[in-house]
Amino acid sequence: MATPLEIPARSLPVPETVSPGMQALIAAPLRLGWNNFPNTSEGWRRLAEAGRVAALPNVNAMAERLGISIEPGMIAGVRVHTVTPAAIAPENRNRTLVQIHGGCYVLNPGEAGLPEALLIAGFGGFRVVAVDYRMPPEAYFPAALDDAVTVWQSVAADGDPRRIGLIGTSAGGALVLAMALRAKRDGLAMPGAIASGTPMSDITKTGDSFHTNAMVDNVLVSTDGFCDAAARFYANGHDLADPLLSPVYGDMAGFPPVILTTGTRDLLLSNTVRVHRKLRAHGIVADLHVYEGQSHGHYGRDDRNPETAEAFGEIATFFKTHLAG
Amino acid sequence: MATPLEIPARSLPVPETVSPGMQALIAAPLRLGWNNFPNTSEGWRRLAEAGRVAALPNVNAMAERLGISIEPGMIAGVRVHTVTPAAIAPENRNRTLVQIHGGCYVLNPGEAGLPEALLIAGFGGFRVVAVDYRMPPEAYFPAALDDAVTVWQSVAADGDPRRIGLIGTSAGGALVLAMALRAKRDGLAMPGAIASGTPMSDITKTGDSFHTNAMVDNVLVSTDGFCDAAARFYANGHDLADPLLSPVYGDMAGFPPVILTTGTRDLLLSNTVRVHRKLRAHGIVADLHVYEGQSHGHYGRDDRNPETAEAFGEIATFFKTHLAG
Repeated sequence: MATPLEIPARSLPVPETVSPGMQALIAAPLRLGWNNFPNTSEGWRRLAEAGRVAALPNVNAMAERLGISIEPGMIAGVRVHTVTPAAIAPENRNRTLVQIHGGCYVLNPGEAGLPEALLIAGFGGFRVVAVDYRMPPEAYFPAALDDAVTVWQSVAADGDPRRIGLIGTSAGGALVLAMALRAKRDGLAMPGAIASGTPMSDITKTGDSFHTNAMVDNVLVSTDGFCDAAARFYANGHDLADPLLSPVYGDMAGFPPVILTTGTRDLLLSNTVRVHRKLRAHGIVADLHVYEGQSHGHYGRDDRNPETAEAFGEIATFFKTHLAG
Repeated sequence: MATPLEIPARSLPVPETVSPGMQALIAAPLRLGWNNFPNTSEGWRRLAEAGRVAALPNVNAMAERLGISIEPGMIAGVRVHTVTPAAIAPENRNRTLVQIHGGCYVLNPGEAGLPEALLIAGFGGFRVVAVDYRMPPEAYFPAALDDAVTVWQSVAADGDPRRIGLIGTSAGGALVLAMALRAKRDGLAMPGAIASGTPMSDITKTGDSFHTNAMVDNVLVSTDGFCDAAARFYANGHDLADPLLSPVYGDMAGFPPVILTTGTRDLLLSNTVRVHRKLRAHGIVADLHVYEGQSHGHYGRDDRNPETAEAFGEIATFFKTHLAG
């Protein structure tokens, strides 16, 4: 066993080379409740519902600014929102993105899961089907994955599967990778491309940035915080190293092109770049984008930040390059 | 002015998902002398010469393992080594790489500057001309850049300039970017592609990972250490924000494809990803590779580490994809 490196306390200034809006996100204190989370099913459910209600004004304002319409519905028995921009880009007429929200498998039900769908619809001119998958305590692993695959397959049944892109962040970033692993297992056609944002690709507490960025990332804060607890709540006793829960351990041969997004302060920086290396080891087209000073998911917070336009511009370009027309 | 984030002391274990050889590099103590460096010209010269002598056995062993021949010489008045693999890959027959070594503009004279040239020659099957540029106290800014451009132009004069690739790490990673900026200024033809490893792209102490990875990166350790002092010694009073010293401030429109390499613990992580963002803002083809747990330049230390084969495999593939044949 090698000797650990002892790192002294330090003071991190907010970088001045990022936009004022991003500086405000970076300057925010550590997320309230990062180390004080529910220990009952009902407690998690209430936390998720409170978060949903709190998110509504932001979701609605973002939809209005981006000119997006949101239609709730059901596809094959799964709750979804269909997210449509005022103008679908001509080259995207036959394309659909399936969006799988984040929130540690427990948070962001309903409209709270929509910001990423709004951003890629707005900045990319894509039609998006956002999956409002079942979460604990309603249902446990692999319910989220089952729901995501069900909706994806239903959307893909209408035409060329390579016209479908998958997009997700955090738990959703892991789920889009797990969907491709599940497709391999079940002999389903691959999507045309995948956008995996700061994926929870390893929930076994493995990854160097769990240590280097502990207390640096002001969103997730620590691997001993709420997000790991929530992921274990979802796993419900299942082996955390199962590739359908920790996709970095999956066999990624045959994957479609993947774009990965993270930030230098992200607690999941390592688990984003480990997925990148794994994909590249199989020769998969895989683009990595790392944004200065950003913690977990900061790039998807506010459509008014230029870094958000930049990140979703990259993702849109990637889909336009790699999805079938 | 935003409130800085206060980060407590912590203990960093060595990641177990990387190779044993890489674990040994990551487990090494902070570089000896990181905060105890010369304050005289003669002191720097002696330090560089001592480093050269100490590096010789490693350089010779690496050349032997990789089957590389090394020929010292002069091109247009500049000291070079021509580095030739036992077998030049057929598709590289008409291609040449110009390698610009790192060492904070002061270290790695002579053979000590050759490891990166050996690695790309060996793993990629390329002929490489390694530039042994003048360093302080022999000569100051912009002597290193002048020498690098002189050799490059002399090599490029023989044929299609797009068959030439530039490769460098650290100070060399900055110099290859500065060479392209100089070429734009002087109306010279661009190279076919550039490999910039963990570039010293900003020597004005700007970059978030100067804070987040301080005392985490066991090679550079701190922006208050030897490397910044050496860069200021080279700059010799010149404005540190000049794009030819801090290329992140340069206009990168019209650059050829660039591959960037860094590690999650790299003190220059931010200044690598900031270059990536800048290139992408101009629509330049730019690939970013970030390796798990690695500090500054760890990927280029030892040809026997699989991560080194992986990193130079990526760089070789990039050159083969983007250089003219």
